[in-house]
Order: sequence, then structure tokens, then C-alpha cells
Amino acid sequence: MEGPFVVVGGDAAGLSAASKFKREDADRDVIVFERGRWVSYAHCGTPYFVKGEVEALTDLLSLSPDEIEDRGIDLRREHEVIGISPDERTVTVLGPDGEAFDQPYGDLLVATGGRAVSKPIPGTDLDGAFTLHGLDSAANVRALLAEPDAFSVESLGGDGYVDEAAVARYGAMAPPETVAIVGGGYVGIEMAEAFSAWDLDVHLFQRAEHVLPPFGEAVAERVEPHLEERGVTLHLGTEVAELRGERGRVSALACSDGTELAVDAALVGIGIRPNVELVAETGVELGESGAIAVDEYGRTSVDRVYAAGDCAEMPHVVTGENAWVPLGLTANRAGRAIGETVAGTPTPVGGVAGTAVLKAFDLECGRVGITDLDRAREAGFDPVAETVTAGSRSGYYPGAADTTVRLVADRGTGRLLGGSIVGEDRAAVRIDTVATALEGEMTVEQVERLDLAYAPPFSPVWDPVLVAAKVLGGRLPS
Amino acid sequence: MEGPFVVVGGDAAGLSAASKFKREDADRDVIVFERGRWVSYAHCGTPYFVKGEVEALTDLLSLSPDEIEDRGIDLRREHEVIGISPDERTVTVLGPDGEAFDQPYGDLLVATGGRAVSKPIPGTDLDGAFTLHGLDSAANVRALLAEPDAFSVESLGGDGYVDEAAVARYGAMAPPETVAIVGGGYVGIEMAEAFSAWDLDVHLFQRAEHVLPPFGEAVAERVEPHLEERGVTLHLGTEVAELRGERGRVSALACSDGTELAVDAALVGIGIRPNVELVAETGVELGESGAIAVDEYGRTSVDRVYAAGDCAEMPHVVTGENAWVPLGLTANRAGRAIGETVAGTPTPVGGVAGTAVLKAFDLECGRVGITDLDRAREAGFDPVAETVTAGSRSGYYPGAADTTVRLVADRGTGRLLGGSIVGEDRAAVRIDTVATALEGEMTVEQVERLDLAYAPPFSPVWDPVLVAAKVLGGRLPS
Repeated sequence: MEGPFVVVGGDAAGLSAASKFKREDADRDVIVFERGRWVSYAHCGTPYFVKGEVEALTDLLSLSPDEIEDRGIDLRREHEVIGISPDERTVTVLGPDGEAFDQPYGDLLVATGGRAVSKPIPGTDLDGAFTLHGLDSAANVRALLAEPDAFSVESLGGDGYVDEAAVARYGAMAPPETVAIVGGGYVGIEMAEAFSAWDLDVHLFQRAEHVLPPFGEAVAERVEPHLEERGVTLHLGTEVAELRGERGRVSALACSDGTELAVDAALVGIGIRPNVELVAETGVELGESGAIAVDEYGRTSVDRVYAAGDCAEMPHVVTGENAWVPLGLTANRAGRAIGETVAGTPTPVGGVAGTAVLKAFDLECGRVGITDLDRAREAGFDPVAETVTAGSRSGYYPGAADTTVRLVADRGTGRLLGGSIVGEDRAAVRIDTVATALEGEMTVEQVERLDLAYAPPFSPVWDPVLVAAKVLGGRLPS
Repeated sequence: MEGPFVVVGGDAAGLSAASKFKREDADRDVIVFERGRWVSYAHCGTPYFVKGEVEALTDLLSLSPDEIEDRGIDLRREHEVIGISPDERTVTVLGPDGEAFDQPYGDLLVATGGRAVSKPIPGTDLDGAFTLHGLDSAANVRALLAEPDAFSVESLGGDGYVDEAAVARYGAMAPPETVAIVGGGYVGIEMAEAFSAWDLDVHLFQRAEHVLPPFGEAVAERVEPHLEERGVTLHLGTEVAELRGERGRVSALACSDGTELAVDAALVGIGIRPNVELVAETGVELGESGAIAVDEYGRTSVDRVYAAGDCAEMPHVVTGENAWVPLGLTANRAGRAIGETVAGTPTPVGGVAGTAVLKAFDLECGRVGITDLDRAREAGFDPVAETVTAGSRSGYYPGAADTTVRLVADRGTGRLLGGSIVGEDRAAVRIDTVATALEGEMTVEQVERLDLAYAPPFSPVWDPVLVAAKVLGGRLPS
């Protein structure tokens, strides 16, 4: 008899796999080990919890542990998998009582996720300094933002999950007046909005010359003035050297150029890394990115061991090669496919196009595919790009807003490689047109011909994506 | 030497062709004959002008006559082309002075558009009864809605174009209190919103059992209660027999079932027909739809005669066969392509997917491709459909709204054939994902794998289109 399907990690990829598996193969056991208390939570919602738009931590749970158990999944929270023995087909698990035990598996999914990095910035262990990854840090940040006399553990709505001692300690501290955000990526921009909602003086430090590098300059050049209009002080091209503290709490941020800013809170969002330590010395190979290499079914180099989610690579829709693009939908989809495969129906995990959208106050930003020209050249393309700004609705209809679209294509074949978009009116969702065109391996000429929706309240006759395709098409050899 | 490029009709298709032609071939003349005074105007904006959201008639012009002339186009308004002689390569034109003359052409584009039909409903010639097609009727409706003592011809902003006698006459009439809309298609729904903004008692009559037949029942079943919530009285499955009048003004609407409703205005929006009378006896063939048949370059069956816009068919993206789908973007695109072709670079007019979006008060509706199962069978498919309702954003994020998506696919091949969508939050633009997938001839399996945008403020992890594809995929043989 086959052993159970064992899943390491109880978030998007892991629980999607376990749920799908159990629906397909009700007779075989599936055990999910999660080292923390939280399971199945929405990372991407944490800035909005901090902001206060999402009231309770538990609102961010897609499924409660009870709902997971109701699906027939054997969920073990506070169980850390600390070793894998592929030859014996067992994992070694450290339980909440501190005792380790071996668990046999028939198939194994490594869905250990990623973690926020803070290196090489010293001082992130000070009180008032945070990375935002997971609900515990979100709870701590919001506890700090609350006035101590208005704070209660219950106000966070994390009943039974939240680290009560930690949030109580933060809740008792004086709220900050000035906060430094280190890193101008997704988390940095979303947290700038969140902190501004608490009326903090917000400073955003970005080592590069522009925020949001994956979205490219066309997007950054509209986001940056918008952030400043909203009161965020930008420090671009500025490397943060360290966070400094007084009596254990962050009190200042020092830059490599010697300048210093007095702050009483800091959020470091300079990237995440895949959690791959567990597979070291198991024979599970990593890809060039440092994340776990997998084939089109999510299988690692070791028999019966799969990987998915933020710890694993996926095939890129445009290059066809594996890439590490840790995002929510693809984690869910890969998990779901692996659940189906393990249950007996081989199902490809699908590709990742790197589709990402972001709210920056009132601006909507989107990006997909390969938008960086150097990256396109590395992948063997001869890229050509065009940027246009066009209206989001018929010009005479109220609410029309300038929408900037940048498209990148391969000169020789005319194939669309990627795109980005920014604007205030329904800009983000329009990136799906580009994402769909990429999956269809369309040329710019095909995109020009798309019969997209037109009605004055929603779109002009020529959607901004079509305008961009027309202009880019004019640059391509016919 | 070649004769000029002559264009019949000065709206979307005609002026797109003339503009593109002149940019590509500056040396050859292009003459545009338009029988009316208005040129290059946005049909789709007229309900919003009547509503009052668009202030001036001239706001609805994409280009003014001066701008058109500046492009080097010889624009002749109030010139009606009344005959074509393909053998002589001339058109016969009736000028504003009532004199007819012959104009030679090298190439000819028939872009005569369509017209609203009112048959078989008697009484549409009464004062207070309208069809909405073109800016003159829109001007008359808004003049009627205004209080006579507040009305002035100038308030319509149609300086130099508007039929001053007609609008002055309507402006002097007492505004209506109760209006009947005959027909529950695009125009009917949009005008229900427009009339409601003027606080009229609005009654909408639809012969079929549901409004918006091209969008299908899944959409209609959400639109109908929404209209009623907004105070529109629906009379579904009700055939209107005639409009009745007193002293020349509409006073009642009579139904085939014998019921009668007292009204003091009526708008008939029961469809449009292509204007093809001009090509009768020219050898230009019509398609099955009754519109002008064209090839992939917009060429008719007669040498050097092209057709585009609401008077012509276009190849349908899904069936590959010609279809008559009179919509704005495809008219513009076909015109532009023909302009390029006539200038020497053969350019396909592209396909029509029948993409349409509509605002019904706060609901956004969209449809694309083949959504009717009978129609799909006629086209040789074995259709299977699924309808789902899913959130427009992460459930915990404010503003998430139920979004209903219906997708239709071919059972044998899994190919996506069409879809419709309805919801209050960014629903319309999402139909572009389906439109793009249709152009890419994607299967449902491919749609399931699309890497669409996810961020809590804009979309849930699984976009409603993906949810629908997952459910429909489960119905298809794997």
C-alpha cells in the first residue's frame, strides 16, 4: 500500500495540493505539516490589514483549520519538517512538544514558501523594525500603530492564532510618528499607503534610481510623483546602511552617503528568498535562481518529491525556461495541479508569465512577461519597445484618465514579449489582455487586431493596449 | 493617372480609411462625401449626451471638419452619393444645391453605415417618438427633456451642425413625465439610465422574455432586477403594437395583448439595419446577413469597390465566416486597413469577435464570441456552457462584488467559443481576456492556465474568468 501524500507547508501551494488531491482520491491520506500557527492566509492582504481596511487577521484566512479538516486533510500546525530521507521515503518532523518523529510518505510536496530578507541591513532586530512576511509581523505592526490606551489583543481579530505576548508588547509602545520604508518594491509601495492612512510621516528609501524595478521606468515615472503628492518623501538612489536604535527601539536610519534620518519605526521590504534549506543534501536540485528546479508537472529531481509555490521555479510562458517568480495565483495553480498529478491524473503546473498588479494610492500598476530589454536579450530576443499614453475611456465621458502602456516585442518575429501599464482608471485589469496574448504567443500584429471592448464608460474605441500595439507595430519590419 | 480615393460616409470607417490613406499616400486625393452635416461622431456616446453627462454635442466629435481638412482630406458634407457606376468608375453625387454631378474614382469605399429601424411599429413619426441614431435625434430628445424656459439651442453645444429649427421646436414642448422605451437592447438599456437621470417614469418594453439577447440569460437575469431596483418598470415578453398620438404628439403605447399605457414620449430601439441601397444594381454582392459581403481586405465583389463599417460584414474570429456585427472598433479598424490597402500596402481588416460591453446603471455587462448554443451548433460546434458567480476582488477587500461569468466551449476540441460577464466591479473590462483568448483560438485548458493579475484591490487569486474556465474544464472530456 502507498504511503500518504505528505505536504510541507500549509499555505497557497500546499493546501491547494492537499485539497485537490483529497477531492480526487478520497481513500488515500494527505497530511499537511505547517511549522507555524497560521495556515491558508493571504500574504497579499497584509498591507490592507495594517492600513485598517481589512479589520481582522482572520479575515485574511482563505480556509480555517476546521474547514481544512472538513476536507479530509490531516492538518498538523506547529509541526516543522526538519529533514527528508528520500531513500526511506520519510520526513522527520518536530512536533509542538519538541519531540521529533519520522513520517513515511508515498509522495511528498515541498511547499515551504519564501521569507523576507533583511540582510545586509543591520538593526532589523530592533523594536519598531519589521519585515512584512506573514501574519505575525502584520499583527505586530498594527499593534504598534494603535494608541496604547485604545489597543487590545482582541482588536486584531486573530483569536487563537496571534502571538499574544508579542502583540501585547507592541500594543503598549508609543505609536511612531515617522516611519522609514526600506525598499521600493511591492511591499514598500503598499506599506507607504498603509502608513499614510495612519497619518505617519512616511519616508521611502530605494537603492535604485526608481521604485518598482519589475514594472520598469514608464510605470515608476508616474508612481513616483503620485507618491510624493500623497505626502511620501522619496529617497531614490539612496542606499540604507543600517538602522540605529536607542534603548532597543529603532531611532534612526543611516544611509551609505552618511546622511541620517530620525525615525521611530522602519519597515524593510527588500525582497524575499525561497526557503530551500530543507532540501539541502536530499538530492533535490536547485535551479539557477536558487529556488527548487521542477519539471512541467512540478516534479523535482528526486523521485516522488514535488515542489511548488514560493520555494520553487516554474516554466516561464515567454522564454519556456524555468524562472522564479513567487506570486499567489501560480502557487495555487501549481499546488492544485500537483494534487491532481499525485492523485493519478498527470496535470501540468502551467506557466508563469510574471503577471503582477499593484495599487499605489490611486494609481493602478500592472506588468507581465519580459519588460526589461537586457533580460529579453539574455533570453535570445531582439527587443523593441514603445510607450504610449492614451485615455481609459472615451475622452468626452467623465472619469477618463491617462493610461500609460509599454509593450515589448521581438523585432525579428514580431512576437509580444511583455508589457506594463499604469493609470488611475481600470488600468490594472487591462494587463490581463497582455497576459492572455503572451500565453497565446501572439505577435504584435495579432494584438493590434484584437476585438477589445468599447463603450464610453469603460474604454475608448481604441483601448490603450491597442494604441500601444499600433505604435509598436509601426516600429516592426512588416 | 489613378483617380482619387472616394469614400461614401464620413463616420468611423470612412474617416479612418481616409485618414490612414492620406498619411500613407500624400500625393493622391481622397474625397469623403457625407450626406449629413455631422461627421466623425461617437454614436455610442449619444445616450450619455441625452443623460447630460456629456455636455455638448460637439464633445462627441472625434474630429472636427477643420481637423479633417487639415489632414488633407477633401470633405464634402451635405453631399449624398446616389449612384455608383462601376464600369465608368464614377459615383453620382447630389450636392447641397440640389444639383447632381459625377465624380470619378480610382478606388471607392462604401461606408454608408446603418440606420435604426422602427418597423413594424406605427406611430414613430409622432412628436415625442424617437429612434436614437445619430446626433440629430439625440439633440431632439435632449431638447424635449429640457424645461422650455430653461432651453436654448446653444445649450446643446451643437454650433453650426445642429438642426436649429427641429431642436427649437422640441425645446418649446412640455417635457415628458412618462417615457416608453421599445426594445431592451443596448440602446434601450442605456436610454433607461439616461431618462431616469431626468426623473422620468421609465417603462421598458421587450418582446423577448429577457433584455439584452446578445448577452444571454445569465447577464439578463442580473440586469433585470437591477433595472427594477433603479425604478425602471419592465414589460418583458410584451410586444408593442403601436404608438398612439393626440394632436400629433405621442400619448400612449398599445401592446399586442390589448393593454395600453399613457406615455408622453417614446424611444424605439429595436435594432439597426445596414444601409445597402446604394449598391443595389451595382453588382456589389450582399452576404447572408443582408450587409455587404467583403473579403479579408474589405473588398466587395466589384473591382476597386470596398466596404466597411455598419454596412458591411466582417470575418468572425470564431467561425471564420462572414458576419454582420456593427460595432465601433471594428468599423474603425476595417476603415484603417482599407486606407492602407488602397494606399498600396494590402492589410487585412481583421476579424470581429462581437465584443460588446454595456453599462446598465451600476452593472457592467460584457459579451464576446458565440454565446448562444443554437448559433454554436449552426456553426458546426458541439457547445457546452457553464456559468459561475465569483468575487471581483479578494473577499476580505472592500468593494468585492459578485461577478457572473458564462463561458461556452466546443466539447470535442475544448476550444473556447465565447463568453459573457456581468457585475458591478470592473466586470466589463474582463471580457477582454475572453476576447483575446478567442483571437488566440485557445482551449478552455489554456484559459485555465492563464496567468492573470492578482492583487486584493483588483482581483481575487482566481479571477472570475479563471473560475469559470475551471468549472467548464471539468465538464469537458480530458
